[in-house]
Amino acid sequence: MNEMLLELSYAVDTFYFLICGVLVMWMAAGFSMLEAGLVRSKNTAEILTKNIALFAIACTMYLLVGYYLMYSSPEGGFLPSLGFLLGDENSVDAVLAGGEDAPYYAARADYFFQVVFVATAMSIVSGAVAERMKLWAFLAFSVVMTAVIYPISGYWTWGGGWIDALGFSDFAGSGIVHMAGAAAALAGVLVLGPRAGKYGKDGSIRAIPGANLPLATLGTFILWMGWFGFNGGSELKLSDVGSANNVAQVMVNTNAAAAGGVIVALVLAKLWFRKADLTMALNGAIAGLVAITAEPLAPTAFGAMLIGAVGGLLVVVSIVMLDKLKIDDPVGAISAHGVVGIWGCLAVPLSNDEASFGAQIIGMVGIFVWVFFASLVVWLILKAIMGIRVSEEEEYEGVDIAECGLEAYPEFGASKK
Amino acid sequence: MNEMLLELSYAVDTFYFLICGVLVMWMAAGFSMLEAGLVRSKNTAEILTKNIALFAIACTMYLLVGYYLMYSSPEGGFLPSLGFLLGDENSVDAVLAGGEDAPYYAARADYFFQVVFVATAMSIVSGAVAERMKLWAFLAFSVVMTAVIYPISGYWTWGGGWIDALGFSDFAGSGIVHMAGAAAALAGVLVLGPRAGKYGKDGSIRAIPGANLPLATLGTFILWMGWFGFNGGSELKLSDVGSANNVAQVMVNTNAAAAGGVIVALVLAKLWFRKADLTMALNGAIAGLVAITAEPLAPTAFGAMLIGAVGGLLVVVSIVMLDKLKIDDPVGAISAHGVVGIWGCLAVPLSNDEASFGAQIIGMVGIFVWVFFASLVVWLILKAIMGIRVSEEEEYEGVDIAECGLEAYPEFGASKK
Amino acid sequence: MNEMLLELSYAVDTFYFLICGVLVMWMAAGFSMLEAGLVRSKNTAEILTKNIALFAIACTMYLLVGYYLMYSSPEGGFLPSLGFLLGDENSVDAVLAGGEDAPYYAARADYFFQVVFVATAMSIVSGAVAERMKLWAFLAFSVVMTAVIYPISGYWTWGGGWIDALGFSDFAGSGIVHMAGAAAALAGVLVLGPRAGKYGKDGSIRAIPGANLPLATLGTFILWMGWFGFNGGSELKLSDVGSANNVAQVMVNTNAAAAGGVIVALVLAKLWFRKADLTMALNGAIAGLVAITAEPLAPTAFGAMLIGAVGGLLVVVSIVMLDKLKIDDPVGAISAHGVVGIWGCLAVPLSNDEASFGAQIIGMVGIFVWVFFASLVVWLILKAIMGIRVSEEEEYEGVDIAECGLEAYPEFGASKK
Repeated sequence: MNEMLLELSYAVDTFYFLICGVLVMWMAAGFSMLEAGLVRSKNTAEILTKNIALFAIACTMYLLVGYYLMYSSPEGGFLPSLGFLLGDENSVDAVLAGGEDAPYYAARADYFFQVVFVATAMSIVSGAVAERMKLWAFLAFSVVMTAVIYPISGYWTWGGGWIDALGFSDFAGSGIVHMAGAAAALAGVLVLGPRAGKYGKDGSIRAIPGANLPLATLGTFILWMGWFGFNGGSELKLSDVGSANNVAQVMVNTNAAAAGGVIVALVLAKLWFRKADLTMALNGAIAGLVAITAEPLAPTAFGAMLIGAVGGLLVVVSIVMLDKLKIDDPVGAISAHGVVGIWGCLAVPLSNDEASFGAQIIGMVGIFVWVFFASLVVWLILKAIMGIRVSEEEEYEGVDIAECGLEAYPEFGASKK
Repeated sequence: MNEMLLELSYAVDTFYFLICGVLVMWMAAGFSMLEAGLVRSKNTAEILTKNIALFAIACTMYLLVGYYLMYSSPEGGFLPSLGFLLGDENSVDAVLAGGEDAPYYAARADYFFQVVFVATAMSIVSGAVAERMKLWAFLAFSVVMTAVIYPISGYWTWGGGWIDALGFSDFAGSGIVHMAGAAAALAGVLVLGPRAGKYGKDGSIRAIPGANLPLATLGTFILWMGWFGFNGGSELKLSDVGSANNVAQVMVNTNAAAAGGVIVALVLAKLWFRKADLTMALNGAIAGLVAITAEPLAPTAFGAMLIGAVGGLLVVVSIVMLDKLKIDDPVGAISAHGVVGIWGCLAVPLSNDEASFGAQIIGMVGIFVWVFFASLVVWLILKAIMGIRVSEEEEYEGVDIAECGLEAYPEFGASKK
Repeated sequence: MNEMLLELSYAVDTFYFLICGVLVMWMAAGFSMLEAGLVRSKNTAEILTKNIALFAIACTMYLLVGYYLMYSSPEGGFLPSLGFLLGDENSVDAVLAGGEDAPYYAARADYFFQVVFVATAMSIVSGAVAERMKLWAFLAFSVVMTAVIYPISGYWTWGGGWIDALGFSDFAGSGIVHMAGAAAALAGVLVLGPRAGKYGKDGSIRAIPGANLPLATLGTFILWMGWFGFNGGSELKLSDVGSANNVAQVMVNTNAAAAGGVIVALVLAKLWFRKADLTMALNGAIAGLVAITAEPLAPTAFGAMLIGAVGGLLVVVSIVMLDKLKIDDPVGAISAHGVVGIWGCLAVPLSNDEASFGAQIIGMVGIFVWVFFASLVVWLILKAIMGIRVSEEEEYEGVDIAECGLEAYPEFGASKK
């Protein structure tokens, strides 16, 4: 009977992990819809293609090399070990041994949960470089990002490398996933330059509205839902009272932070721009979610709401500031995931006594420097080899026809603009 | 080992509750898409803004005051106790005590599940007042509704107040959630009046078609999916054979009722209007779901199908009747949630011997009178203070530009109509 | 305590089954969005109506007769038993008896999981016959398909009939669900003929682009997500280490196969047509998923990726070939579910030693012959009685107005084309 209970406990933790993984996988659809809604119709089919292809590439490359590299490298180290594919599954005997180090969920469930995080990091990039980057250059970058760049900083942190040894604390990845994705995106945007016509020579900034806001809203709701798996699953264990309480607290806090982000971003937009800008409310939700991701367990629900609210404030300010700096990010990804991701990591010591500002800052600098410069090198190499930007004419006509040979909405009579 | 089993059982019930909560949260996306699909394109961004903002407000206000008020007030009573935020989480010791009253899931999981119900009630309102209500008046109403109005009738029923003491039976909230939402909506619609041009002086009724039916269909499927959490989670327990059988029966019946609603509404539309009106099929699905929500456990699957089928019939008739009464509800929310919610409550005694028609009727009257008149007062105060209706010109131009400063589909060349 | 553990185990397996069922139900939304995105706007409302109505019909007919027929007929046999509705639920005593044959999940959970599979099979048909079939003829067919045709071949295989006795192995239904759906679709398409203007007299093939590719992409992501329930739930048990490991492996392999399908289909489209055709990437994902469905457990993740990759290759080739044969399938359903379903069944013996090519081939021929010819007879009878094709004028104007009396996108100014 003892053994049946140990087995059942293992099964429950495995199932919890898998369901959370399914919810995170669903975030790939969220990013696709959000980005497809926020670009112009002439560039919609291409961004959809990028999104489904990057998810497929992330799953493949992380299976082949990334997972091994991230989770089988030496403790406390800097250089990862190389390896191929997944290791063995846990045996019944190992589970029944039942000591401290016995596995409590299936190894494959762990891989499944981790792989959808890689795809999330990569999804952040596609939005920022939208409407002007070549499809195949983007896909080539995504191969390197998901096979090597993300797994190396992932190894340094969750994989037990040197940043982890410093005491860096990032529960579900405000820094490790979101800021990392934003760092790669920022490098890409700087190499790529802004969209044609975005910034006038006289310093004017042209608003380029997204073609389909219901789609963007749907994407945000999908992300909100998926985030319950993203943060909720990052407790890694469910099967005792303390863990179950923690998972519940994480979900409550995740929800409260998103709510706080929406409210502050919407009110701020109303006060600042005199309009209840829906896209700011959507970015506020995402910002609230990113902000709480580094520590969704320690704060009270009310504290989580405030952390999310600050995220909602930061994302609106950051979107305006980046435009002043002529850093063109069509969907606001660098602001929502990067700037707010930093805030999320910095907020950890406010509620979690085991974290320190020092370790948080060193950790973030470590992740940012690695991901940003490694990405920069890859973007520059791709630029030299194959070019990363479509031609002026293709950009004007829309990348859908040029890259995909079809239109996203062939009948809706959208004028080219 | 005994203790490990008790802990695992607690973890399983907590997880079941959380996953059901995630499914109900997803219904917020369903309402958003349904409503965005059924309004005209010029009013789409605003209704999306309302939906995401009301969800955020509901989560915040219920956290701050609503949950305490609903679940910490005196048994059998009428006046609620005031309180702030959530109480303590369950300790391991309390769980292991293991007696009759030991908690079997995390307190936070309960809050998480309950909060998404509040948002559902509020979502019902946004559709009925669409295309002409001021955004900020609506949001102000949603603060009062989710902090006070819903929690008070929630206290009377699920919270153990006077209606519960009468023996009122409403498993997952046909009356407590859906009819309550519809009552608030009806009060709003009566104060607000119909959309310009909806009803001619000669008694004619103008059909105003929704701009995006795939979106409305998606919303309906989302609601259908989310309802498995809404009803399935309302069993509150999973961890023994009887409870597990009950959860399974509830899901089967929920599905059967929705199916019955679709079929009857579609056939009736074909016979009555000579066309297989998609929007009636969608409303039929929702009606079937609302109808079974008050008692999804006691009927057989075949009985559930019939209960849903009657819901599908009622919703079509009610939509036509409300138009004759010049009560303008652009998405049919008052019919699908209010009229059918009443049917759902009345149907309980047909299969559940412990319920009585008397208690059902008194309970419904109690909920309706409270929610309708409390809402009416709030709407009238808001009308006096800030106005609740946009100007004629704003209504003609569409509320998107006036309220949100942007268009939902800026490139799709929709003519103003 | 012993008893509490047995009960908890039963509850966990029931919950696992129900959640997987919810994910499969969600696939109905996926098919709806995929098909609505791939047809022209003038035929969109009608295909949405077909999809929600077929789901309702499938749930109803399978409840009334299909489930009994499929799972209560004599072992090893050919002719099914007739019966009505569901049987009894499992008693606590039966569970606690605890021997080999004790039920380990709720009977209703089994029905819930099975019924969503029937709907999946039927959903495959609606896409193939889109844009020209009469709504009510389609719905009449779906009554027969879900009450009788699918349940009979379902009985022969999963229900323990003669094909099962041969040793046919089809884990989650590459053949039993997907190829069966495609066989019914093929019969319908052959009776119905191609859309007007699709094939020129000079042998030319006109591309008819789908009206809303974000919707089609969303549908594909929904299917991808739902497939984790489709395949993951088909292990049928979760509650011990071996089963939990298997469920995890199935989910990992399902994901890897979809990824392989996307990559190969996209690269092949680029090489062959010189464009990164998004619709091919979407079909590649579905093909990868269909391919792995017959055996998602035995292969390694890398093997699964290759099986999916071959699926991605086959679907592109098959879509081109069927057009040459003038078999007009607007969404590519016959290729993705039929041709690739055959590949999936044939691939089983590559990784599963207990399967043989002989049994696989006989089983597939058995399923195909039954479903194809039974469907053909039904389509021909429907053609004789009520006609199955809309008039030329209705097809030109779009079936939305003719059948549903409304337009899917009334404001988006789509020209008739």
